[in-house]
Amino acid sequence: MNDIDIETLKGIANQLRIHSIAATTAAGSGHPTSCCSAADLVAALFFGHMRYDPKNPHFYNNDRFILSKGHAAPLLYAAWAETGLFPAEDLLKLRQLGSDLEGHPTTRLPFADVATGSLGQGLSVGVGMALCARLDKLDYRTYVLLGDGECAEGSVWEAASLAGINQLNNLIAVVDVNRLGQSQPTAFGHNLDVYRKRFEAFGWRTEEIDGHDVDEILEVLAAVGLGNQPLVLLAKTFKGAGVSFIQDKEGWHGKPLSKEEAARAIAELQPTAKSGVGHPIAAPHQLPAPKNDPPASYPPLNYKLGDSVATREAYGNALTRIGESDLRIVAMDGDTKNSTYSEKFYKKFPNRFTECFIAEQNMIGVATGFSARGKVPFASTFACFFSRTVDQLRVAGISRANIKLVGSHAGASIGEDGPSQMGLEDLAFMRAIAGSSVLYPSDAVSAEKLVEQMATHKGICFLRTSRPKTAVIYNNDEKFPIGGAKILREGPNDKATVVAAGVTLFEALKAADTLKNEGIGITLIDAYSIKPLARDIIKAAAQKTNNLVVTVEDHYPEGGLGDAVAGELSADGIKVHKLAVYELPRSGKSEELLAKYGIDAAAIVKKVKSLS
Amino acid sequence: MNDIDIETLKGIANQLRIHSIAATTAAGSGHPTSCCSAADLVAALFFGHMRYDPKNPHFYNNDRFILSKGHAAPLLYAAWAETGLFPAEDLLKLRQLGSDLEGHPTTRLPFADVATGSLGQGLSVGVGMALCARLDKLDYRTYVLLGDGECAEGSVWEAASLAGINQLNNLIAVVDVNRLGQSQPTAFGHNLDVYRKRFEAFGWRTEEIDGHDVDEILEVLAAVGLGNQPLVLLAKTFKGAGVSFIQDKEGWHGKPLSKEEAARAIAELQPTAKSGVGHPIAAPHQLPAPKNDPPASYPPLNYKLGDSVATREAYGNALTRIGESDLRIVAMDGDTKNSTYSEKFYKKFPNRFTECFIAEQNMIGVATGFSARGKVPFASTFACFFSRTVDQLRVAGISRANIKLVGSHAGASIGEDGPSQMGLEDLAFMRAIAGSSVLYPSDAVSAEKLVEQMATHKGICFLRTSRPKTAVIYNNDEKFPIGGAKILREGPNDKATVVAAGVTLFEALKAADTLKNEGIGITLIDAYSIKPLARDIIKAAAQKTNNLVVTVEDHYPEGGLGDAVAGELSADGIKVHKLAVYELPRSGKSEELLAKYGIDAAAIVKKVKSLS
Repeated sequence: MNDIDIETLKGIANQLRIHSIAATTAAGSGHPTSCCSAADLVAALFFGHMRYDPKNPHFYNNDRFILSKGHAAPLLYAAWAETGLFPAEDLLKLRQLGSDLEGHPTTRLPFADVATGSLGQGLSVGVGMALCARLDKLDYRTYVLLGDGECAEGSVWEAASLAGINQLNNLIAVVDVNRLGQSQPTAFGHNLDVYRKRFEAFGWRTEEIDGHDVDEILEVLAAVGLGNQPLVLLAKTFKGAGVSFIQDKEGWHGKPLSKEEAARAIAELQPTAKSGVGHPIAAPHQLPAPKNDPPASYPPLNYKLGDSVATREAYGNALTRIGESDLRIVAMDGDTKNSTYSEKFYKKFPNRFTECFIAEQNMIGVATGFSARGKVPFASTFACFFSRTVDQLRVAGISRANIKLVGSHAGASIGEDGPSQMGLEDLAFMRAIAGSSVLYPSDAVSAEKLVEQMATHKGICFLRTSRPKTAVIYNNDEKFPIGGAKILREGPNDKATVVAAGVTLFEALKAADTLKNEGIGITLIDAYSIKPLARDIIKAAAQKTNNLVVTVEDHYPEGGLGDAVAGELSADGIKVHKLAVYELPRSGKSEELLAKYGIDAAAIVKKVKSLS
Repeated sequence: MNDIDIETLKGIANQLRIHSIAATTAAGSGHPTSCCSAADLVAALFFGHMRYDPKNPHFYNNDRFILSKGHAAPLLYAAWAETGLFPAEDLLKLRQLGSDLEGHPTTRLPFADVATGSLGQGLSVGVGMALCARLDKLDYRTYVLLGDGECAEGSVWEAASLAGINQLNNLIAVVDVNRLGQSQPTAFGHNLDVYRKRFEAFGWRTEEIDGHDVDEILEVLAAVGLGNQPLVLLAKTFKGAGVSFIQDKEGWHGKPLSKEEAARAIAELQPTAKSGVGHPIAAPHQLPAPKNDPPASYPPLNYKLGDSVATREAYGNALTRIGESDLRIVAMDGDTKNSTYSEKFYKKFPNRFTECFIAEQNMIGVATGFSARGKVPFASTFACFFSRTVDQLRVAGISRANIKLVGSHAGASIGEDGPSQMGLEDLAFMRAIAGSSVLYPSDAVSAEKLVEQMATHKGICFLRTSRPKTAVIYNNDEKFPIGGAKILREGPNDKATVVAAGVTLFEALKAADTLKNEGIGITLIDAYSIKPLARDIIKAAAQKTNNLVVTVEDHYPEGGLGDAVAGELSADGIKVHKLAVYELPRSGKSEELLAKYGIDAAAIVKKVKSLS
């Protein structure tokens, strides 16, 4: 496959170093030494080994490359410039507003499948891609370049473990062991043996190499795909390699060279550098393209008004229903599938389900990997355990990943298991994810319809489901667009508008009945779309009810439904009164807890009556 | 040390099983089979090995026990009841609203140092405690009981790695390898070798044992403390062990026995069970108590108005200043100490600093461990990387842990590094942590004073620091109580109240000058305490300025300053207009980004003018 000679590859590596140094010096910031340590590895991979169409970085059977150590972005940019994808002069616009060559890679770039820059996340994404290749019967491989420092992140070992369990021999990790972290040397320096033992214990085949010996790199890469284990190259490197006065020196992390230093460095590298070689590797195989088109429609629902069904169970029903015709849909769970009801999908489509075990961070990375390959992944666990994954979700937001999250057991209404199992912060952190949609159905019909919306909407969506069974209150043909809301009660002289969602909607319905018996009308809104919020619907209702709104949510008062409504509508003079879980809850019966923490029907009645 | 015979210990184990089964059956929920698998281990630890004063669970030199597999709570409760701490009848109140014996342990109980129930967190806390024992020159040991399923969590390996690096031979992990997860068998079943290789690769001494053989358990425990490695007992067990019809069977996770089944199970266990044995182990050594009292006061500050100092650097100055006399203060960082400026503390007090490397989840667990032993730990990293730790923070909230978090590099104002390094969600998730305080200083004086407040306030506190240098605007003797705010500008006919914090405060000051030149007055408030918010101060100001408020924050619009102000004040008819970062930012210069995303002086001027 490789018809490029070693000297040329070494020359390309030095050219990549030159680009990285020149770009960071021009920018006045960045990580040139972290680029230099990995330059030979990247040159060997991009110009001596990987199969891809450099004119079409998105081609479905291209080998994938994930720069987990995202701070080496200039190296990645330089490699793509050298393949001919864009002019090398653009590299000097690094980190400028207006250039897509940002400080760390984002998916604004056609060759970055995901954003990186928060360490320890790339390998999880690689696991998702490698699993997807297998599902799609494609022979591309996924390469992930990690730093040694980031191997301290537990998420790396969550990913490593799942790769080992699934025997992903189409996944290759390359660890750039340059010995130096940001603020001090790593714990293990150049002791490759520590990393070798760890990866082996996690089910990997390992190769210890000199990361500056292109010949040796290519030799071990030639054995990629052999055996039934993922492969890791443990590459001994030097930070700043190739430049005498910065190589292997402390104090050079995240620091550009001065103009004079850059000139000296480039003078050292220039004599052996080679550019304009292009991409002399064999093209990827032309295998059948994966079927990633959505179906024209989904089969209908079949609930009866008054049926008692938990929204978490409706989620399982929905995914199984729409998954039949929508082959893009895959699912994953963190050993809670019998509680979240993703088990229904697993039982029907076992080869489209990934059991991620109790490792939620990696689950999000796996989902992100599937989404980067055109799938629509649904990842489920208890709502509270998504708090384990906020950094992964944050970066997925930067990636504009098309992932779907389903969190069951929301709120104090779960009852006896106690606060550690209650999602009471999930709306706050999910709302804060860039580009997210946050959905919170109350009954089975709205839950199923929102799952359909999630499957067709592009972007990160979170569905909050509840543990207790609730009555079906909507007809099967009701529509639930993202960004909408439903007005359930409305009268001509309503005193206030009550905005609820999920289990509290049923408390609000009871409260409406009680208040009606006392001659007090309320407008009642099901705010099933917390983000985007149906601000116009809620505003119009509020303006008809003395500008008074009461929000009621099974969530802490910070960052949830109440803050969302107040944050959107207070500028319009709407007065928002928040009912929420204002203290750390205890174990108890569901209905006891709703009462104790002031989010049940009685609390709503009391609050509405108190308003003037 | 051990003067109890093996048959008695076996009998205690069965009594613990009986208690666990009876309690969960009475509660109608819970995890009896997860208790049964670990009953012999717990009996051996509590009644045959650990040194502690059962009448005084908080005694400073007691051995510590952390139930990382928190769902086995009834087993823990049963053990303490059998030591005589409280009547065994109380166990039947498990999971009832008025009982502190909740579904998962919380610190409402005197014997639970931390809440558990979110898996994979206990070992990190144990690392913190083991490090603290070393610092305090105490010889207590820390025992952590883990499930096998939770070993999939990366945080376990973050903790394992740091324990190995620090050669914590006073830390003992016990893995209850019962083979069965919640929804299916674990990936490795009873293959103890997988766990052995992993722990060994992470620097641990390992012992594979039969977890139901009390003799063998005691034998390996006798070698605790030997060598310079942490020790892990890998215990082969059976879920539901001791009860013939549930032992090692799938489908029994988190499921209580029916009354009839419980009676059958207890009938099997009763003949060999032993109760009322008390705690026949040697008392802990009476070593000097650690000095955990705060000093009467801290040394004064010495800034000059107009000095240019980044708040992140002021943090480093403050911690070093107050750490001299406040010996409770310890610090930790995730290889960003040269950026967060915790390096200043590290250089002055190296033995009170823990380098946690790039493993933020574990860093929070370590901090929580120190706090449970009476220290005041300050953990720092970039604000955005605390998103990695939200589950740990959530559980620390349930623990009411006294931990202090300092997140640097907040917001788009960091500039060129791009969105992956910008904290833009941190206020949202930090506000949602139970019992948290969220602080955001603008200058060096307020930053230092808030560090003092954090050190003396009991509870989780987050300090948000900024990357750019800002002018000192407060006098050295100014006070900054948590929950306060400062009015910086105020006039008789102000049009609106502008509420800012951190870098945007300086934009607001510029805006105030510009507006003043155009004859428009504004009231300007420094909301350095985002939670609790100085609602009365802001409300009073707003009511003098046409009920108009403009918030301006270097954060996404969801869950931050704007939502906090709107959520607190909209009910009073205050109209809150939010300026925030409404789109995914790019790399660029700090001031370019503040302008592009509409949170600079010009944007404030424009917004104030637009109000009517």
